[in-house]
Amino acid sequence: MQRYFAISKRENYFDLRENDYYHIRTVMRMKEQDQVEVVYQGKVYLCCLENVNKNLDVKIEKEVEQFVQKMPRLVLILPFLKEQKMDFIFQKGTELGVEEFLLIPMEHSVVKLEEKKEASKVERWSRICKEAAEQSMRLSIPTVRIERQRENLALLGGIKLLCSTQEREKTIKNVLKNVDIYDTINLMVGPEGGFTKEEEIYFEQKGFIKVSLGTQIMRVETVPIFLSSIVRYEYME
Amino acid sequence: MQRYFAISKRENYFDLRENDYYHIRTVMRMKEQDQVEVVYQGKVYLCCLENVNKNLDVKIEKEVEQFVQKMPRLVLILPFLKEQKMDFIFQKGTELGVEEFLLIPMEHSVVKLEEKKEASKVERWSRICKEAAEQSMRLSIPTVRIERQRENLALLGGIKLLCSTQEREKTIKNVLKNVDIYDTINLMVGPEGGFTKEEEIYFEQKGFIKVSLGTQIMRVETVPIFLSSIVRYEYME
Repeated sequence: MQRYFAISKRENYFDLRENDYYHIRTVMRMKEQDQVEVVYQGKVYLCCLENVNKNLDVKIEKEVEQFVQKMPRLVLILPFLKEQKMDFIFQKGTELGVEEFLLIPMEHSVVKLEEKKEASKVERWSRICKEAAEQSMRLSIPTVRIERQRENLALLGGIKLLCSTQEREKTIKNVLKNVDIYDTINLMVGPEGGFTKEEEIYFEQKGFIKVSLGTQIMRVETVPIFLSSIVRYEYME
Repeated sequence: MQRYFAISKRENYFDLRENDYYHIRTVMRMKEQDQVEVVYQGKVYLCCLENVNKNLDVKIEKEVEQFVQKMPRLVLILPFLKEQKMDFIFQKGTELGVEEFLLIPMEHSVVKLEEKKEASKVERWSRICKEAAEQSMRLSIPTVRIERQRENLALLGGIKLLCSTQEREKTIKNVLKNVDIYDTINLMVGPEGGFTKEEEIYFEQKGFIKVSLGTQIMRVETVPIFLSSIVRYEYME
């Protein structure tokens, strides 16, 4: 069943986004009394459509019980990458349970995002996340955020891991295995050229632990997918 | 350093494929005495180039010691999918350590590959695997194989898992955790519409164990990437 995320609730009715109404009417060509699922504040409701060709009212029928795997809050910290790679990471990361994408400037990043373009980029990336969240039946839409003040990373809650190609001893498995379940896991991935030495030292000072992902070389856009897969696996029953 | 896979060895020299010679001369524009890495029978050799504009001889200088993670032989069994999804799976699966891609016909697969096109498709897919293997510095190129006789799946060695959306109790983690290290893990993934009931029964009779991947819904092309990531993780030190 098609799933949408509500923006607000008025008694027995949900408000959706304008482009969701367009999607219901024009893309899905739904009719009176057709049913959709609507997510609101982490709960799922079965709804039926009324006045499709006028206001389009989305009426709540009942709450639907959910069976969802418990996962820590997963925050992916990334450099700016080329558009196609970013899109890929947002889509697949959302499917695999990332809750927040935090983009920060990094020395070796070949893409330098201008500040005046930030808002439109974040809007575009958030739209990719929203669509992937609907398709993969998630209960939340991940947030996308740009942080240019890298010192603020010290304020992140939960455990903070930095995926380093320099680290030889401590694998990510060592860390995820040997600790209790975290509420939040922050995973930082570098650009194609890796972190600079100064960056690794700087981020360690901000509380990040360097970990190795093993001996296999992966493309930069594969790393976040690998990471979100293994966190999902580690927290599987 | 650029890496190639040799097809044969003559005393102190390796033979590469014709398109590798083209790649060295025309794409990389390499010169006399430039160095490349060559993989042969699972070992890596530092080599230098001689007679670049004539025969192009690839002379062995020394063997290079490798640090590679021990992994079971990972076989992914897949339906025919749309071209773009297949390409994606071959590329990312190779990066993450898949050793064999085994394609079989499945009921709900929307793509029906004609037998006369098989050879050219397998050649194309093998080329994608070869390039991904070079880029990710692997020691082997995965094989791509089509098996139209599904009864032959009974003959596969190692453990055989079928990723089922019907299975609720047994997760893939239950299985990978509670058994000794396998030599070979065969993982079967269904098409967009899932396996038919008859298929699940049929494959169970051929020795496959049904497992759940948890409650999250993933796109069909994400599943093999998730699977190869978690196997790599499970066997990480």
